[in-house]
Amino acid sequence: MSDKAPWITCRPELKVLDCTVRDGGLVNDHQFSDEFVRALYHACVEAGIDYMEIGYKNSPRLFPPERFGPWRHCHEDDLWRVVGDHDPERTGLKLAAMADAGKSDWQTQIVPADQSPLSMIRVAFYAHQVSEAVEMIHHAHELGYETTANLMAVSILTEEEIDTVLESIAPTPASTMVIVDSFGHLYREQIDRLYKQYTRALRDSGKEIGIHAHNNQQLAFANTIEAIILGCNRVDATLYGFGRGAGNCHTELLLGFLRNPKFKLRPLIEAIQHHLLPLRQRLDWGPSIPYNLTGQLNQHPRSAIEWREGATPDDFLGFYDQLLAEI
Amino acid sequence: MSDKAPWITCRPELKVLDCTVRDGGLVNDHQFSDEFVRALYHACVEAGIDYMEIGYKNSPRLFPPERFGPWRHCHEDDLWRVVGDHDPERTGLKLAAMADAGKSDWQTQIVPADQSPLSMIRVAFYAHQVSEAVEMIHHAHELGYETTANLMAVSILTEEEIDTVLESIAPTPASTMVIVDSFGHLYREQIDRLYKQYTRALRDSGKEIGIHAHNNQQLAFANTIEAIILGCNRVDATLYGFGRGAGNCHTELLLGFLRNPKFKLRPLIEAIQHHLLPLRQRLDWGPSIPYNLTGQLNQHPRSAIEWREGATPDDFLGFYDQLLAEI
Repeated sequence: MSDKAPWITCRPELKVLDCTVRDGGLVNDHQFSDEFVRALYHACVEAGIDYMEIGYKNSPRLFPPERFGPWRHCHEDDLWRVVGDHDPERTGLKLAAMADAGKSDWQTQIVPADQSPLSMIRVAFYAHQVSEAVEMIHHAHELGYETTANLMAVSILTEEEIDTVLESIAPTPASTMVIVDSFGHLYREQIDRLYKQYTRALRDSGKEIGIHAHNNQQLAFANTIEAIILGCNRVDATLYGFGRGAGNCHTELLLGFLRNPKFKLRPLIEAIQHHLLPLRQRLDWGPSIPYNLTGQLNQHPRSAIEWREGATPDDFLGFYDQLLAEI
Repeated sequence: MSDKAPWITCRPELKVLDCTVRDGGLVNDHQFSDEFVRALYHACVEAGIDYMEIGYKNSPRLFPPERFGPWRHCHEDDLWRVVGDHDPERTGLKLAAMADAGKSDWQTQIVPADQSPLSMIRVAFYAHQVSEAVEMIHHAHELGYETTANLMAVSILTEEEIDTVLESIAPTPASTMVIVDSFGHLYREQIDRLYKQYTRALRDSGKEIGIHAHNNQQLAFANTIEAIILGCNRVDATLYGFGRGAGNCHTELLLGFLRNPKFKLRPLIEAIQHHLLPLRQRLDWGPSIPYNLTGQLNQHPRSAIEWREGATPDDFLGFYDQLLAEI
């Protein structure tokens, strides 16, 4: 059957990670109410999502609590307050937090896994930070967590740089190596090359390949599908595409593609209507011309974000001329 | 080189058709000002677009001029008034109009090509109308036009039905057979199957394959890329994705992918800012939850359009429940 119409069958081993709170929090400095986070938690449980990434384990020194909400740091106290009754066995949902190399006090912020509602630590890093990332993965693994390696901004690296990173990550206990298209720059042919490069380098490591796509060119969902067709079994998405700049692959679109009967769409539609739409009234995200352009040019979206937050957000031509003058 | 990084090279024989006025006009009954149409015409010329589809050649009896604007009928008088100085040789742009089987008085509405600014007639039809479509193609061809065959709603047809249509179209003088995903339902694997089926059936006909994608699942651009990678040389898109319901593949995203130096992005950004953004303030289009859902379910978007025009456009859950109750 799967040779005939694979798009109507499913692959039970494929796991979905919803990172709405973690990645979306970059739009509003993680200033979410407890009610918001709890509602999304329950939506994930009811929808059959495998992992919910509930925030960052980033440094309160670098991200002071006066400005940044609790989900930038994921203090254990905050986790217990909001999802204190969490039971991964009963719910089928595991909680994850992300720690950035260079931005996390990981030596002190991460407590042993059996004292935390968290089951997974995802380590995000740029290529030049790979040595710290390897230390972080080992540290979190020794504390009892499942770990992942998320090499960011892969679209600006050479093949040689990527190979060097993959060689360093291969022997670590990370369960998954994630292809991260931070700038929303990649076309499907490039996803194919990266997937092949990642699997070749990690062939004997037992690791899964993951995909984390951004929507600058309206390709986040399509590139995620492409990675799934190739064999990615770890997939990131956010509700309503909530995320900085152009946002992410939409969880609700992804579940429609996956066809696994354990996934339920209705709780996500409900959460979007009651919790994401009100945010959308006051926060800007999703693909628009400025994000299309930074994506096409393989640039960090920061200039587009600044333009959209500035006095003339819809002066697309002004942004285009500025961008072209700068390259 | 093209084996190494095809996404940064280009294929000069690939032609882009911008159908903003024709397909977008379904949102507002083709009530565009002359100024709007003229501005888009000049943008297409300056951007290096190959074809501009400027409207329908549909019946004024079925679409009375009291309600529908001139671009539903493309009377020659209207064409001459707005683009009377058109010169395909000088501008590199050809003008096209679409005629629907069953909705067009094609026997009387189409004048000889040498008396019209139009160079191409695109014949749109459902599978059961293929015999009329074949007559229309022959008729327009004899009047001197390039013609295309646009089989709509292909996602609800069986392979046998599609083969029967392709067999009828193969011997006609149509230059192009277009894969039309009217409901925005298709995933990339399905585009692959259809492309192979179309090329197999039309192998010896000398026809090009075209792609016309809708954005219900945010896959219009990605599916267009997929078709291009496979070999499609005729590609439809609209400015800012303007089109009924979820809209279309965005012309400005497409040009970014194509890399042909003859294409210029700036005139399109300018047209979007000055002519599409003002429309966007008062008209609803683009992917949203209701269109995601009809796309996933392989349904015509009319129920989603009605919902978005109704009293509770953002009651996504209400729409979801209604839709599920009806299937």
